Amino acid sequence: MTRRSAVPPPVTAVLDASSAWLPARLSAVEELLREQVSGHGELLAADAGSTLAAGGKRLRPLLVLLCAGPEGGPDALRAAAAIELVHMATLVHDDILDAAPLRRGSPTVVAASGRERAIGTGDLLFSRAFAILAAAGDARSIELLAEASVALARGELAQRQDAFDTGVSEQRYLDRCRLKTATLFRCAVLLGHDDGALAEFGDAIGLAFQLLDDVLDVAGPAERTGKARGTDLLDGTVTLPLIVAIEREPALASTDLRRLDPGAAEVLCDRIAGTGALDDVRARALEIAAAAKAGLAGAALEPEQRRLLDLVADGVVQRYS
Amino acid sequence: MTRRSAVPPPVTAVLDASSAWLPARLSAVEELLREQVSGHGELLAADAGSTLAAGGKRLRPLLVLLCAGPEGGPDALRAAAAIELVHMATLVHDDILDAAPLRRGSPTVVAASGRERAIGTGDLLFSRAFAILAAAGDARSIELLAEASVALARGELAQRQDAFDTGVSEQRYLDRCRLKTATLFRCAVLLGHDDGALAEFGDAIGLAFQLLDDVLDVAGPAERTGKARGTDLLDGTVTLPLIVAIEREPALASTDLRRLDPGAAEVLCDRIAGTGALDDVRARALEIAAAAKAGLAGAALEPEQRRLLDLVADGVVQRYS
Repeated sequence: MTRRSAVPPPVTAVLDASSAWLPARLSAVEELLREQVSGHGELLAADAGSTLAAGGKRLRPLLVLLCAGPEGGPDALRAAAAIELVHMATLVHDDILDAAPLRRGSPTVVAASGRERAIGTGDLLFSRAFAILAAAGDARSIELLAEASVALARGELAQRQDAFDTGVSEQRYLDRCRLKTATLFRCAVLLGHDDGALAEFGDAIGLAFQLLDDVLDVAGPAERTGKARGTDLLDGTVTLPLIVAIEREPALASTDLRRLDPGAAEVLCDRIAGTGALDDVRARALEIAAAAKAGLAGAALEPEQRRLLDLVADGVVQRYS
Repeated sequence: MTRRSAVPPPVTAVLDASSAWLPARLSAVEELLREQVSGHGELLAADAGSTLAAGGKRLRPLLVLLCAGPEGGPDALRAAAAIELVHMATLVHDDILDAAPLRRGSPTVVAASGRERAIGTGDLLFSRAFAILAAAGDARSIELLAEASVALARGELAQRQDAFDTGVSEQRYLDRCRLKTATLFRCAVLLGHDDGALAEFGDAIGLAFQLLDDVLDVAGPAERTGKARGTDLLDGTVTLPLIVAIEREPALASTDLRRLDPGAAEVLCDRIAGTGALDDVRARALEIAAAAKAGLAGAALEPEQRRLLDLVADGVVQRYS
């Protein structure tokens, strides 16, 4: 594994601490993902292949495999690949909406191949996710992934609906996070091991993950996060750091996000940071992650699984990308 | 049922000829579709609700129900709704690519609510399709629909790849039709009744349906088809009428579709018609539909089902929209 920063991304830390089964399984999922994008037409191979090669944390597949445990069979591998395919599909479609030129340092599908191919590529990745899971024949898994996909799309729509609105409430923001991020994390742990205590863990670390993502967008530094500071603000996405900053400094509410340019976005990031909002949100993310770990007490897990899930919870709030 | 033209659309003709079970089931599917789009957020309700209300032939759900027969249970209703949701998702995404202002006389989602919401709405409809089918718990059905969705997306990508290329071969066109249209018809009949002879019937009438669609795009008249003549040509989509016309009048191959405006598209339609290509393609569609009917001999069907499937086959090649 390549370490991209001094603070290892959560997956690296977990794999380093794991016995051999987990890294071996994650490699098998990577192979499965490669098969999925290479065997369904040249356009998918070109467009999704580059998305796949650009990597990503593979945090959702890791959660599936980890929760399935060392005894997890081929169904866990398929479920892990399926959830990453849904995640990739969402990213490809999101990049169209954001007109994003780069993701993880590589050109996005929309930038490389145009909007039309990006829509089709996302649809295809989405369909492949359900196809691979259906081949495993477990209707409960498909139901979980379908419901999570519904939530993802609803979260994306809600975010677009709220765009540029600095009056968005904290509750509305948290609801959006649940739809957009937490449900897929919840789905990941449940695909691995259908257990109520794990479901809550998945929800919580998904939420913590999103909170930290939103802190990083404002805090940077760009060299570590891989994207310019204030990217969300430029898209009109109002996140918790700005919501908290407005509570502390109400004048910020009159900011017209539609008029923001990259320079002004950086200035706004500094103003948000100046209110102490980032420390506040980071502290909340840490608290949620800590509660997630505590909640694992009730789950039926092997000691190694518990230890590694603790590392995941730590990792999602300590990462830089 | 409202008859929109002197030649009844295939679904109307089939319902008129059917005993009570089929119209009752199709109404139940309509209700299920309304529930699906109304229960998952206000944006979906607004955007997909109008897509739903604008109607459509509901030919795919009809095929599911018809093949499931009078004894088909709630799973057939869910499968029928699921396949229409996938079809609707595809239309919503296609309309983004085509920047289409109207579909079935109503504003498209992209026209009414913008590209961003149209992408999200399509994703949501797609996800709901799998969610409703997963709730029924039949992995084989999900596999069928997932594979058909993969084919749809591949067909769409292939069509974009071939855009504006007047050198596209007939074989390539037919392959695209199979991916883009025939596989979903095949899926519809198989969702109703998993039988090899029916699968071939579905494939064949899907292909015949697409061929006639492509004839109607060139032949019009616009008052009956509900769209301007040459709409496909303006999008750069080269279909069998143009391919056959080029075989007969090779000079047509030098047409630069990128430079086409609506007036020039009408002129091109007239030139295509002038070669006799439309009669040729229409005859092929009729031949395929006739073979589809003949092929039903081997399927295990009740007499009423067979009679109604014959009407479907007749209808797809006699319709005007």
